[in-house]
Amino acid sequence: MLSAHPHPFDPLSPAEISLAVRHLKDAFPNDNLSFRVVTLLEPAKAQMIPFLEAERSGKPSTPTPSRSALIQFYRGKPTDFREVWIELESGKITKEKILSGKHSYVDSTEMQAAEKACMAAGEVQKVIRMLELPEEAVVCIEPWSYGTDGMNDIAERIIMCFFYMRLKSHGDANHYAYPLDICVEMSGDLSVKRILTLPLGENDRAGLVSEVGVRPFDRNKIHRSSEYHPDLVEERRTTTKPLQIVQPEGPSFQVEGNQLTWEKWQMRVGFNYREGLTLHDITYDGRSVFYRLSLSEMFVPYGDSRTPYPRKGAFDLGSNGAGVNANNLKLGCDCLGHIKYFNGHHHTTAGDPIVLPNVVCCHEVDDGILWKHTNYRTNNAIVTRSRILVLQTIITVGNYEYIFAFQFTQDAAINYEVRATGIVSTAPINLGQTVPYGTLVGPGVMAPYHQHLFCLRIDPAIDGHSNSLMVEESHPMPLDNPNIHNPFGVGYTTVSKIVETETPLDTDVTKARVFKIVNEGVRNPVTGGPVGYKLVPHYSQMLLAHPSSYHARRSEFGEHAVWVTRHHDRELFSSGDHTMQSLGGEGIASWIRAREKPQGVRNADIVVWHTFGTTHNPRVEDWPVMPVDKMTVSLKPVNFFTANPSLDVPISAQDVNRSVLVESCAKL
Amino acid sequence: MLSAHPHPFDPLSPAEISLAVRHLKDAFPNDNLSFRVVTLLEPAKAQMIPFLEAERSGKPSTPTPSRSALIQFYRGKPTDFREVWIELESGKITKEKILSGKHSYVDSTEMQAAEKACMAAGEVQKVIRMLELPEEAVVCIEPWSYGTDGMNDIAERIIMCFFYMRLKSHGDANHYAYPLDICVEMSGDLSVKRILTLPLGENDRAGLVSEVGVRPFDRNKIHRSSEYHPDLVEERRTTTKPLQIVQPEGPSFQVEGNQLTWEKWQMRVGFNYREGLTLHDITYDGRSVFYRLSLSEMFVPYGDSRTPYPRKGAFDLGSNGAGVNANNLKLGCDCLGHIKYFNGHHHTTAGDPIVLPNVVCCHEVDDGILWKHTNYRTNNAIVTRSRILVLQTIITVGNYEYIFAFQFTQDAAINYEVRATGIVSTAPINLGQTVPYGTLVGPGVMAPYHQHLFCLRIDPAIDGHSNSLMVEESHPMPLDNPNIHNPFGVGYTTVSKIVETETPLDTDVTKARVFKIVNEGVRNPVTGGPVGYKLVPHYSQMLLAHPSSYHARRSEFGEHAVWVTRHHDRELFSSGDHTMQSLGGEGIASWIRAREKPQGVRNADIVVWHTFGTTHNPRVEDWPVMPVDKMTVSLKPVNFFTANPSLDVPISAQDVNRSVLVESCAKL
Repeated sequence: MLSAHPHPFDPLSPAEISLAVRHLKDAFPNDNLSFRVVTLLEPAKAQMIPFLEAERSGKPSTPTPSRSALIQFYRGKPTDFREVWIELESGKITKEKILSGKHSYVDSTEMQAAEKACMAAGEVQKVIRMLELPEEAVVCIEPWSYGTDGMNDIAERIIMCFFYMRLKSHGDANHYAYPLDICVEMSGDLSVKRILTLPLGENDRAGLVSEVGVRPFDRNKIHRSSEYHPDLVEERRTTTKPLQIVQPEGPSFQVEGNQLTWEKWQMRVGFNYREGLTLHDITYDGRSVFYRLSLSEMFVPYGDSRTPYPRKGAFDLGSNGAGVNANNLKLGCDCLGHIKYFNGHHHTTAGDPIVLPNVVCCHEVDDGILWKHTNYRTNNAIVTRSRILVLQTIITVGNYEYIFAFQFTQDAAINYEVRATGIVSTAPINLGQTVPYGTLVGPGVMAPYHQHLFCLRIDPAIDGHSNSLMVEESHPMPLDNPNIHNPFGVGYTTVSKIVETETPLDTDVTKARVFKIVNEGVRNPVTGGPVGYKLVPHYSQMLLAHPSSYHARRSEFGEHAVWVTRHHDRELFSSGDHTMQSLGGEGIASWIRAREKPQGVRNADIVVWHTFGTTHNPRVEDWPVMPVDKMTVSLKPVNFFTANPSLDVPISAQDVNRSVLVESCAKL
Repeated sequence: MLSAHPHPFDPLSPAEISLAVRHLKDAFPNDNLSFRVVTLLEPAKAQMIPFLEAERSGKPSTPTPSRSALIQFYRGKPTDFREVWIELESGKITKEKILSGKHSYVDSTEMQAAEKACMAAGEVQKVIRMLELPEEAVVCIEPWSYGTDGMNDIAERIIMCFFYMRLKSHGDANHYAYPLDICVEMSGDLSVKRILTLPLGENDRAGLVSEVGVRPFDRNKIHRSSEYHPDLVEERRTTTKPLQIVQPEGPSFQVEGNQLTWEKWQMRVGFNYREGLTLHDITYDGRSVFYRLSLSEMFVPYGDSRTPYPRKGAFDLGSNGAGVNANNLKLGCDCLGHIKYFNGHHHTTAGDPIVLPNVVCCHEVDDGILWKHTNYRTNNAIVTRSRILVLQTIITVGNYEYIFAFQFTQDAAINYEVRATGIVSTAPINLGQTVPYGTLVGPGVMAPYHQHLFCLRIDPAIDGHSNSLMVEESHPMPLDNPNIHNPFGVGYTTVSKIVETETPLDTDVTKARVFKIVNEGVRNPVTGGPVGYKLVPHYSQMLLAHPSSYHARRSEFGEHAVWVTRHHDRELFSSGDHTMQSLGGEGIASWIRAREKPQGVRNADIVVWHTFGTTHNPRVEDWPVMPVDKMTVSLKPVNFFTANPSLDVPISAQDVNRSVLVESCAKL
């Protein structure tokens, strides 16, 4: 049964997924349909703005935008890939696109099928036997989507199968610790295309096993130090005593459906197969701040220049999906305190809805002091503690984990924190050798250099939808200009510029460059300037791959740290809608280039995109499992309010916080 | 009574302070001594290295270095300022320096005396009457140390008294909300030197009240919105429910004297009047990592170019002291959970020891996930949570607060976190006017732009005292070099260079420049490279003041983000030993310049200095009290261990963590 009144931002319910699937089957009665995507088609912003305004004002609602699904499916065969938009109530198809030349994302069903077919292939088994593996080992295949390198006809879907082995004795033994020196290209029809032998030194090159055989390589070096599973780690520290979060009156948040209220924040929680967690219609104290926040895309290019490694360039959202790869979060493990979980919904390729349980968790965290002042005249100290609301989702993409968290603060800031963890990707290397684009992490195990580049999509609604991007810098006042009073050489001022048309921008810490999203139409009554929020970037090296490379052509957003575009409803994914085996020319730079004329972004409905990440040249300390590497981006009010919005936060007091004085804690 | 066996790094005990004072009085029997500094003279490193090695190895200890005090005092009058080093046991003076031309730091006794004398002066009272202040107001004076601007003979000690008023009705009413338009220069003898009228617009200039009188200025604009004290804030949110940290088995740390042990970390906690918290002999799992960590100096220059504001340039360590201004931390307010406090010790000007209670707190924090991996083949998720040990100290310097915290992690990293909070400094401004170097935060109240520049002193001992600084960058491999294999344009490698001689360096995020402190003599058995720790900088704009300005000449460290010097025992303070009314030429750049020949820093006992901070152009949200602005610097192992040092941290489990599932939390 359909929910009587879903909110326009609510993800499709299982019943709605079924209904959409039924409509599509009715429309294509004679075809064998394979459902790749059945997700909410978010209503056009032009429809949503009056709806949200009416909703906010508590007035009798304007008509609720109708519910529609966006469906991507194979009609009969994977090469007939299509997208339709369907109105759920009427079953009417409002748009139909044949996605010729595009590939759908890859899911675990396909990956496992490729792995199984690869392993079962006689020619692969023959090569495995040639490797003469140790008795205690079992072979594992790690399938990778094919990162375009120009060496294959991209119309054909290809899966790369990398080979590893693991200790037979334990199912969670770490196979990444034993990279083998072969890899198999699998065709879309799950047949073996090529079996390659991998380079084992800087001057080695990949070859076809059929031509060069397998090379001499020590595959017998068992090293127990590369295990991470607790069953296989011999010593475990016992010094860490329990620490628990107790909330005697329960959490400070309320949830109704997908609407979340916490302190003065209100927002709607969304979720889809691709972006995972999305946030909608974010307000603070009733004032509109952001229309939509989401991770738009991420790209993980590897720096090893030798074939086949340039094929390792993963779009973990576009080609894998942050939603479908989201972890089922566990009480007490992934967070502490009082935890509310949100489920996601997806579907089988047959179109049957499935639940993705506990994919988002919501909880509160104490973040130390929020503000303090001691009046030295009276010795009175006033302290408040910072409480933070965290909305967290964790994804596993093969070897690697990403922990994505939106954090809301009491002083009206939003942080987006990414923690990278999991197991670094590995490649085989000859004992005694090194390469200049990787770190040795075990005997015969090389962890190649790579980058993680994230693109946060910020769809602002700062006191409305007419916003501008102001770039502000701090410059010394000149010393030698007789019209400028700077007699002691210490003066400095800010220089601001409003961005007029769609453009990429770079960070510049030497000028303290600040990116402010402002509403020029709303003046702050205290400062006299426009109200706004500023983007506090995570300073990052941009994409290292050459602009002519497929990595650069496919990722586009990785070239610059900040982009501003005019809002377009379906411009959500900064490397394009279809990244799987993409050739480039579909992302944010291409959109801007393709406009008929430069689009104005001043006093307009704009979107700001922030590219950030890390150049991850692994340390051996990242092995066999990596301690989190944290990156944080913030959105902070800048002259949006008339004073510190956290001025009214409870004063910190021992009778509430119940800390314990440690009198003595000498060693035993 | 003296402790039988103080550790050489232990701060002076009250009994030792008394003993040192007695020795000095014996040496100057006929003088009226005013004690400015009585602190531990840390033993020479050359003495400490064999001592620590013997201590670590558990061998019969080599001779314990003798205890000595460093004393700075006025002999009779403030212009006769001296420093002596005294052996505590023998009373022998091992060094005596007449600090001619130098000024001691300013303390609250002196500030309060200046304030009182200023207020009592007849000519000041006369000017106050000219201001025609509202009935409900009371005048406050905010004394500032005099930032050199070249307009006075610096041999004379000067205090700047800025004027404010506050609501008479409450002792903690916020006087910074009512800056008055006069300021008084006080001489060292506490007589009034000059009474100035302050500029009230961009084109105003300061003048002598005796010449120009006081200007028209609206001093009657009472605005309750500028109060922060809870008695004066009318609305307070009640939505934040209690959150407590419970540690049923107590803390995971042990303390014996000043030696702190937590997880695999061990260190000695130090404290002195100037740097506040210092850390010594830091080891992880028995391996030496850092010899000494401390905040060396900080500088807060203001960007308002108009006299007298170029005098606002505060060295909060050198001229005020992070130790003597440290807050008495309160249970349950400044931190949660199980808390151990450390006291500091200081003395009166008469030489009597005093306790500075609870100046350092030690507690643990849960910091979310430390590492996680889900094996998608078995669906087994292994998660560990990150526990952090925090050593925190908070200082109040007039209007402003700094929260300094060293954080130790289970994966062997050390973070240094600074949180800036408190009340921004303010200046008067005419209603309806703006200035390009400040933000309006209330009617007639301007918060000037300023910078906070911190200098962290890192004295490394990475597996010993022979260390080097390696600068590493990530560079794309060339596309057109036939000798380099980069057929797809995606390859990148790291380029490393060891710094050979003392030099400043800059950050460069576009090259992912990394600063590694390495021990070239100790090779990592897995990677083959040197063991090391890397400095993860806080990316910051450097000093904006012109190189010819006194701000620049006095701060020196503010010019570059990273400096490497050869270790010298008493080179602790990167803007020189005496910053009060300093003229420059005494800091880190001057040390390097003054060497007889360039000093090698490769395979040497080196010190690394990191300058970081923020260009703080206030937001109105920073008013009337500022939500914390956080800055974090990290020191992370980089190929120091042979694997993830947190691999053995307890696996996260609900039976220990006892989280609570929120089933329903709809709004009431």
